[in-house]
Amino acid sequence: MLRFLEVVSEHIKNLRNHIDLETVGEMIKLIDSARSIFVIGAGRSGYIAKAFAMRLMHLGYTVYVVGETVTPRITDQDVLVAISGSGETTSVVNISKKAKDIGSKLVAVTGKRDSSLAKMADVVMVVKGKMKQERDEILSQLAPLGTMFELTAMIFLDALVAEIMMQKHLTEKDLEARHAVLE
Amino acid sequence: MLRFLEVVSEHIKNLRNHIDLETVGEMIKLIDSARSIFVIGAGRSGYIAKAFAMRLMHLGYTVYVVGETVTPRITDQDVLVAISGSGETTSVVNISKKAKDIGSKLVAVTGKRDSSLAKMADVVMVVKGKMKQERDEILSQLAPLGTMFELTAMIFLDALVAEIMMQKHLTEKDLEARHAVLE
Amino acid sequence: MLRFLEVVSEHIKNLRNHIDLETVGEMIKLIDSARSIFVIGAGRSGYIAKAFAMRLMHLGYTVYVVGETVTPRITDQDVLVAISGSGETTSVVNISKKAKDIGSKLVAVTGKRDSSLAKMADVVMVVKGKMKQERDEILSQLAPLGTMFELTAMIFLDALVAEIMMQKHLTEKDLEARHAVLE
Amino acid sequence: MLRFLEVVSEHIKNLRNHIDLETVGEMIKLIDSARSIFVIGAGRSGYIAKAFAMRLMHLGYTVYVVGETVTPRITDQDVLVAISGSGETTSVVNISKKAKDIGSKLVAVTGKRDSSLAKMADVVMVVKGKMKQERDEILSQLAPLGTMFELTAMIFLDALVAEIMMQKHLTEKDLEARHAVLE
Repeated sequence: MLRFLEVVSEHIKNLRNHIDLETVGEMIKLIDSARSIFVIGAGRSGYIAKAFAMRLMHLGYTVYVVGETVTPRITDQDVLVAISGSGETTSVVNISKKAKDIGSKLVAVTGKRDSSLAKMADVVMVVKGKMKQERDEILSQLAPLGTMFELTAMIFLDALVAEIMMQKHLTEKDLEARHAVLE
Repeated sequence: MLRFLEVVSEHIKNLRNHIDLETVGEMIKLIDSARSIFVIGAGRSGYIAKAFAMRLMHLGYTVYVVGETVTPRITDQDVLVAISGSGETTSVVNISKKAKDIGSKLVAVTGKRDSSLAKMADVVMVVKGKMKQERDEILSQLAPLGTMFELTAMIFLDALVAEIMMQKHLTEKDLEARHAVLE
Repeated sequence: MLRFLEVVSEHIKNLRNHIDLETVGEMIKLIDSARSIFVIGAGRSGYIAKAFAMRLMHLGYTVYVVGETVTPRITDQDVLVAISGSGETTSVVNISKKAKDIGSKLVAVTGKRDSSLAKMADVVMVVKGKMKQERDEILSQLAPLGTMFELTAMIFLDALVAEIMMQKHLTEKDLEARHAVLE
Repeated sequence: MLRFLEVVSEHIKNLRNHIDLETVGEMIKLIDSARSIFVIGAGRSGYIAKAFAMRLMHLGYTVYVVGETVTPRITDQDVLVAISGSGETTSVVNISKKAKDIGSKLVAVTGKRDSSLAKMADVVMVVKGKMKQERDEILSQLAPLGTMFELTAMIFLDALVAEIMMQKHLTEKDLEARHAVLE
């Protein structure tokens, strides 16, 4: 358990040198210029997508989760943010393809720059779950399956929220004013 | 199986004489005058609530499901439509109370006019799952637990959609234009 | 509104002559012989699928909804019940194909016997949303998009629950004993 | 953005000194001795709860999410893991109380040891979103609302998964064998 916390802490620290800030800027630009933002992810990446969508709503954006009840037809004025570590999850790839065919913009948040998802995307935000200097063997025992990607993606997306708050001079109070109370 | 279909068919036929059209008018008025419509239900009634919310979105309303990702803070400009056969489901009653405290309007869709939920509501739309002339004994064997309420509520709410379409001169094409395609 | 209730009541009455009881028997047999039952549907058909899955759980089956948190890997000992009016919903067709490739059995609940979904299925349960003698024009105004299929499928699946209860001598009390109370 | 990553990295590093390993042991013992594990959380904590539940399923436990379709009645043989930063979220507190009344065990994963949720719990796993040495002012600007608790709870729960894997000699392959493929 303590070793896991050490590995994650170190990984996040290293992430600071691996995040491409120019791409971050392009991602924020696409989000800002869209009429609505749609998000998608499968399994645990789906929960990360939802956690991000909730914060986008708190920030004042119009945002929808693919597959939720009130999600309308996507248009060529909208952007889809698709989250997949492998970039090969069938449903995420198929739906991203549909969105591209309709003319929507696509942001891929993925661990693989050469994945099917990344190849279609207007902006490819690479979020490494495993970095070169980390030993795969140890990680798969401590952090099985997509664990490192999911944690890293969640932390990256919350960092993005911090960045947007700063750029737009939003405070915690602004977000709280939109936070659901029926829970 | 055939007996069940017969009972349901007969029940829906009788429903025409039991639906209070004046209350239907009040329910539509509350929905129309709200800034946003929130819906809530637990278990199978929750799925009915979502099926209704999806159609409200297709009709052009701004609508949210309590507990879904993009649902914002409810205000005194909004209406909550709460669905509960017994009108006593803990979470539905508690959340409806919160909404009333905030100043939101409340529509109860319930089988019980004297339930906790109904007592708080601005409009009580009674949808009978079991009618006087129907024998409880038979029904509980054919249609266990909330089955009759759930089916009746779903059909009633789709009838309400038909009513709103007619009043607003909306066609299937108008609804289709808002229907999600990413699925 | 009253016209809608009349149309639905009449439709359910006619359904008794259109349901193929032999196919119902085959569907129950597949459900009974599976290790686990998986269900899938998109949009409002997805809510129907969930309402059915909940009752299967109440009846004592091991059942999962594709896409929900605790749903494990499907195997060739399992059956997938896929609900789609058109039988062409992309995600439902793709996932059903995957299940078939793995060797799972497939039950299609659909309005179209010649659809992509139906063609793959081991059992095709045709549930007509619109019958020959009904005028399409009127229906699309009263019951837009998949409304008639969704209502008919929900009622049919609850009739199936009644049938299973009878065959297995289960009572409402047996179902209630498994009904969630944390709500 | 980089400052946020630095703060989170530092926070996780410090977490190693704040996690009570004895309580971790008690939490694992309760999970191991339960017939089924139920999880609950609201909003973003709800997604953390689901991400944890999915891994418990991968590890071979019988696990359910409160409010999902196939979740049965909880019993006094089961444990409820409730996640709430404040420990005061209405629905989480009310449902935890119900579970305790039924005789289920309760694990609270919370930031507040003296919260309503913690007071009821058999095991209180305190996961600090904000530590003494961290300046609240900065954090609320970088990590608004429950962000730090949610990230910390997610990382802690994945550390718990690593711990269970080690104790039970489970490998990534064991988890993969249960991972859903219909997605």
